[in-house]
Amino acid sequence: MAGFNQLFVPGPTNIPEVVRQAMNMPMEDMRAPDYPSFTRGLFADLMKVFRNETGRAFIFPSSGTGAWESAITNTLSPGDRVLMARFGQFTHLWVDMCQRFGLDVDVVDVDWGTGCPLEIYAERLTQDKEHRIKAVFVTQNETATGVTSDVAGVRAALDAARHPALLFVDGVSSIGSIDFRQEEWGVDCAVSGSQKGFMLPPGLGFLSVSQKALAAAKAAGHERCYFSFEDQIRANDTGYFPYTPAVQLLRGLRAALDLLEEEGLDTVFERHNRLATGVRKAVESWGLKLCAKEAKWHSDTVSAVLVPEGIDSNDVVRRAYYAYQTSLGVGLNKVAGKVFRIGHLGWVNEVMMCGAISAAEMALRDCGIKIQPGSGVGAALEHYRLSAQQTLAKAA
Amino acid sequence: MAGFNQLFVPGPTNIPEVVRQAMNMPMEDMRAPDYPSFTRGLFADLMKVFRNETGRAFIFPSSGTGAWESAITNTLSPGDRVLMARFGQFTHLWVDMCQRFGLDVDVVDVDWGTGCPLEIYAERLTQDKEHRIKAVFVTQNETATGVTSDVAGVRAALDAARHPALLFVDGVSSIGSIDFRQEEWGVDCAVSGSQKGFMLPPGLGFLSVSQKALAAAKAAGHERCYFSFEDQIRANDTGYFPYTPAVQLLRGLRAALDLLEEEGLDTVFERHNRLATGVRKAVESWGLKLCAKEAKWHSDTVSAVLVPEGIDSNDVVRRAYYAYQTSLGVGLNKVAGKVFRIGHLGWVNEVMMCGAISAAEMALRDCGIKIQPGSGVGAALEHYRLSAQQTLAKAA
Amino acid sequence: MAGFNQLFVPGPTNIPEVVRQAMNMPMEDMRAPDYPSFTRGLFADLMKVFRNETGRAFIFPSSGTGAWESAITNTLSPGDRVLMARFGQFTHLWVDMCQRFGLDVDVVDVDWGTGCPLEIYAERLTQDKEHRIKAVFVTQNETATGVTSDVAGVRAALDAARHPALLFVDGVSSIGSIDFRQEEWGVDCAVSGSQKGFMLPPGLGFLSVSQKALAAAKAAGHERCYFSFEDQIRANDTGYFPYTPAVQLLRGLRAALDLLEEEGLDTVFERHNRLATGVRKAVESWGLKLCAKEAKWHSDTVSAVLVPEGIDSNDVVRRAYYAYQTSLGVGLNKVAGKVFRIGHLGWVNEVMMCGAISAAEMALRDCGIKIQPGSGVGAALEHYRLSAQQTLAKAA
Amino acid sequence: MAGFNQLFVPGPTNIPEVVRQAMNMPMEDMRAPDYPSFTRGLFADLMKVFRNETGRAFIFPSSGTGAWESAITNTLSPGDRVLMARFGQFTHLWVDMCQRFGLDVDVVDVDWGTGCPLEIYAERLTQDKEHRIKAVFVTQNETATGVTSDVAGVRAALDAARHPALLFVDGVSSIGSIDFRQEEWGVDCAVSGSQKGFMLPPGLGFLSVSQKALAAAKAAGHERCYFSFEDQIRANDTGYFPYTPAVQLLRGLRAALDLLEEEGLDTVFERHNRLATGVRKAVESWGLKLCAKEAKWHSDTVSAVLVPEGIDSNDVVRRAYYAYQTSLGVGLNKVAGKVFRIGHLGWVNEVMMCGAISAAEMALRDCGIKIQPGSGVGAALEHYRLSAQQTLAKAA
Repeated sequence: MAGFNQLFVPGPTNIPEVVRQAMNMPMEDMRAPDYPSFTRGLFADLMKVFRNETGRAFIFPSSGTGAWESAITNTLSPGDRVLMARFGQFTHLWVDMCQRFGLDVDVVDVDWGTGCPLEIYAERLTQDKEHRIKAVFVTQNETATGVTSDVAGVRAALDAARHPALLFVDGVSSIGSIDFRQEEWGVDCAVSGSQKGFMLPPGLGFLSVSQKALAAAKAAGHERCYFSFEDQIRANDTGYFPYTPAVQLLRGLRAALDLLEEEGLDTVFERHNRLATGVRKAVESWGLKLCAKEAKWHSDTVSAVLVPEGIDSNDVVRRAYYAYQTSLGVGLNKVAGKVFRIGHLGWVNEVMMCGAISAAEMALRDCGIKIQPGSGVGAALEHYRLSAQQTLAKAA
Repeated sequence: MAGFNQLFVPGPTNIPEVVRQAMNMPMEDMRAPDYPSFTRGLFADLMKVFRNETGRAFIFPSSGTGAWESAITNTLSPGDRVLMARFGQFTHLWVDMCQRFGLDVDVVDVDWGTGCPLEIYAERLTQDKEHRIKAVFVTQNETATGVTSDVAGVRAALDAARHPALLFVDGVSSIGSIDFRQEEWGVDCAVSGSQKGFMLPPGLGFLSVSQKALAAAKAAGHERCYFSFEDQIRANDTGYFPYTPAVQLLRGLRAALDLLEEEGLDTVFERHNRLATGVRKAVESWGLKLCAKEAKWHSDTVSAVLVPEGIDSNDVVRRAYYAYQTSLGVGLNKVAGKVFRIGHLGWVNEVMMCGAISAAEMALRDCGIKIQPGSGVGAALEHYRLSAQQTLAKAA
Repeated sequence: MAGFNQLFVPGPTNIPEVVRQAMNMPMEDMRAPDYPSFTRGLFADLMKVFRNETGRAFIFPSSGTGAWESAITNTLSPGDRVLMARFGQFTHLWVDMCQRFGLDVDVVDVDWGTGCPLEIYAERLTQDKEHRIKAVFVTQNETATGVTSDVAGVRAALDAARHPALLFVDGVSSIGSIDFRQEEWGVDCAVSGSQKGFMLPPGLGFLSVSQKALAAAKAAGHERCYFSFEDQIRANDTGYFPYTPAVQLLRGLRAALDLLEEEGLDTVFERHNRLATGVRKAVESWGLKLCAKEAKWHSDTVSAVLVPEGIDSNDVVRRAYYAYQTSLGVGLNKVAGKVFRIGHLGWVNEVMMCGAISAAEMALRDCGIKIQPGSGVGAALEHYRLSAQQTLAKAA
Repeated sequence: MAGFNQLFVPGPTNIPEVVRQAMNMPMEDMRAPDYPSFTRGLFADLMKVFRNETGRAFIFPSSGTGAWESAITNTLSPGDRVLMARFGQFTHLWVDMCQRFGLDVDVVDVDWGTGCPLEIYAERLTQDKEHRIKAVFVTQNETATGVTSDVAGVRAALDAARHPALLFVDGVSSIGSIDFRQEEWGVDCAVSGSQKGFMLPPGLGFLSVSQKALAAAKAAGHERCYFSFEDQIRANDTGYFPYTPAVQLLRGLRAALDLLEEEGLDTVFERHNRLATGVRKAVESWGLKLCAKEAKWHSDTVSAVLVPEGIDSNDVVRRAYYAYQTSLGVGLNKVAGKVFRIGHLGWVNEVMMCGAISAAEMALRDCGIKIQPGSGVGAALEHYRLSAQQTLAKAA
């Protein structure tokens, strides 16, 4: 079929042209004598995106799942109690991983469509006088339901309870797109990956850690080798890696970090909010609802849209893909068949989102859902138009 | 700014990924012993796009303007009378070139927004009993006004008058996108370029000629060297070129010809018609008018949209570019400030066009033109949706 | 500096142009409905390179080290006894990994420059009447010393002793370049990575396993998640992956597998032997010695060259890099400063090797080593010339 | 076949990676409002390479042949007398073009292997008291024979004769690689192309002109349109082009100009001399001779090597291509079958040249020419080694 495929899944995201150009490269020796001069800047600038000032960052040739595993196996020991909330496929998978690594997981199940339950976390932490909870987990953005949780709120709960537990954040689909402040919020392990806000192909797992996490690694009782902090630290300190890094992606990362720096993180966050708001206005105009149950849970990187009863959301996604060359996200696990997802993160702009919404409108109508053609995209573009005026006015 | 720039000018057009991949290549020697095995297929397949069966095609490292010049200087002599119609910037420029090359140009000026006046052509040809007219020129698609002319009708007029004049067609923005039949219509010189329906970067001028044009070249009295048929023929017959060809673009051309073959020319034409119709429905929904005055002139590759009195169409184009990263075409010459143009040719699909229309809506409203947000894109996408169903039904 | 950097480290290796073109791509959705039709062919063709007919292969977003870890953690349990030989940096690292995963490693240390000691292995296996040894490890190609070991010989030793231990092979720098026959040799876990004979950037770890290894995985007592067979199998069986795969590299892998298929594995092995022989002839002409102590250990993918006493091989490598834009491999661990390495694997040909040898000659002379200028490259090119004649004659 | 094809023809030359990356781009609108800010820098920096300070430069979508044609048709009139020397295929072709454009060409034929005959030029100019000679042509580097001529000497001859003729220089295979000083030498029309020292794919013709040439254009009597100065000037002055420019190559040109600036033109010239000297030492070691008859004619961008009597140089070239994936240049016209050519211009370095010489050695021996294997490459690399030391010493 003619024309470009339109990619609006919540990762992998669209690759900026300069990143693509940077990765269009011959191979290079990752043991070259001048390689450290390259890697050092990379680590330093990666930490800036996490707003991590005093810890350090690791770059694994892996997916974000690998970075999850690294966080767990390096800082915790089998039997350690951890506090987790489950409200979507990715919180579910993280819980599963912790259980498989022998942690004693206190799982708080809340409705899919809501996020991290601050009150319950506060309660558990306050009750845990003996500090048996070794780590508290928060998924800043549950990619499956389009729900953003309040990481600062979890920190506040820890502080209020004067609880020493480590704070783990899954920021795979938020960091670089939604405000995240590792230092300020006292996050000990912040996980991300290359293929979302970092605008790269998948293949790099990022783990940004605090000094407290590094200290915990000295005592942690899990076996680990590939994802070991210690091996990374020893090699990274010399500017190299303990095994062959994904050199092509690292050159892409350099270009992507430069782009984030150039646009400015706060501007990036504003753009994501602006684009997401347009999508939400479109959904409202369609007369549909988001999976996220309240405005406070609305994600600026992905919207999970509930289809009406009797409709299979997989049909919508398939139709968009086959008839309109547009990739939307399917519903996963409990919301399979019930939601489709529109990713609006990374290297995206207003007109791209209008295309995504247009594709969704066509597919929704094809699947028999009664919406007024142009209603969603009209609502979105009017929002984009007005917010662009504000943005340009502010810049002037 | 984040996100991709959206390109909707009527050339250069968007490059398909496989074409882009094919051009991502190291240099090669255009005198390599096996180079002819590459070039021969290229010429053969290029001719298929022109539906030229008995003539030959030339590939110049040039723009389409160079191919115009080649057609004129190889088949005509200073002082030769030629019949031309002028109704837009590109017909204007072709007239100008002919005059500069000393031809005796019988210019028929008709309204911009109309196309080749068949009745007047018929009359002139019928009256020209002495066959002083050596060539008749038609611009199949006037890119400046979005007007398509009836080439077959011009052939019919020539035949009716039993007139031996050569038939020249400017197909720069039509060939490969709109039905064109060199052999059937008896076109002697058909000009095109790489950056429109051929989905390549600019840099190649194509000239597809009949045996009659080749015969005319033997007597033509113009000086020529770079654009000489004779030099090309001598070298091309051995599989090489008389001077260094644009080898990177030739590899891209190979990939582009394969794409056209794979989709099928008739399917390509249908797609262009479908996409164009959607844009026209959008324009109608906006309450605006096309520059093309009647449906019979409607171009399937570019729509020139008239803005209301008191509005400068350049402002619309600039707004789309700076605020929404979308390139629309400006008005040229007589219609400067009065029209903006939406290109819908080459490697485009439904969702891309919805993006283009959305960008236009935003820019139009920003410039104070009262249109209902979403009205244009809604009309277009509903057309795309319904025609996609027909297409899929036909395929089934 | 002008001109291309010349890459002759034993991985990452040079990327073929078609692979590079294939990776020059926009992102795609790894959950797309037609993605399985892509991945299924990939797994099937990957297995062909391992000559694995009845098992299955895993593709991890990782380095080869990750695939090592996967092999160990999925098929063995803490405390299991394994037999390993150590004779270079990579055998050293694999031993280290096994020890860190709590295996009871019977390490046979032999001279660096020799390979897997078949007699000792045979002896240990024969003595192990109780079959306490659960797995036997062989590094087919020790990248650090340029030593190839006899995997078939290890299989023979296992068979002779009627020993049921699993057979693990590190084929990171051999598979796809040196004859390897998983099925015939009864290899249970064969590890490789993308950046050597597979001619891709680093970022994919390959693990090709037998049914026996899959059966062992059911009982293995190691924690595992990222590298778990079970998770991969469940997802791969549907054509997908348990977490985001490195989609860009997978498209490159498709192109690389096609290249291997097209050239033919046996022809690929012959080419590696021919190129390696030329390098060995150059080394001999220089009057230098290889680290590999006997011809039977000579590696066809990498040559580790001993520098004369009093010379630091790091100086040779640095000189080649800074003065001649050529990356040679440094000596690692016990042979640091004593050897430099010339990689001759992957997408390489005769002329490229002449360039590598020329660079080495210049750097060696710059470092004060007395060799006749042109002696090495002359010996190599004469070998290449004569063997090319044989190859062409055979093809005729 | 495996491994990269090695390109050592005297154009097209190897593309630097950053240039290749810059051309790996989506299309763009050459009428975008901010396009002039891009083109203005391009013209300014292009002129620096010509060392043209007071004139202007034109960039045509064409080969260098087009730029030749532009120079002639814009500044001369049919019947004008011009002085030209013929001593190779490219001087031959330029003479032919002048004759076809109706110029009265005073052709001085000298031996192929020699260059522009300064004494004869001086004589003709001195004798031409009536200044009937309107232009004097010099080919700075005859690509077919590897002969460099003395442009400054021609200027001196003009000045000595106080002759007002225009000075035309074909610098296609010299400018950007060999010292050229348009302003200092009073060159009126300097022609070049993208695919040699500018390290780009073919497709751009460059013409750098003096104010005197611009003045001459006002009176010149040739028809011209595509290659017209006037059209270019009118459009270029606004930052645009009179017809669609080759936008992809222009982005490549930007990167290439940056590379030349970064390395520094004088350093670039030194590098070319160093690399060429190595090749000449290799030829000498082989016991062969260059086509260039004296050292003063030696070209630093291409060496044409005479093969012994009884050998067909085409066989050498074919052998290098088919057996060793190396493109060498064939002999053209009078020296067809007698010479093969090694290009050593553009993005090349020492190790690449060692590869080229190695390939030539193999092919020469395969064709029965008795040379000592390694003799040529040994001589070259020893020169490179010693000169690298000087270069590094100078930098220190």
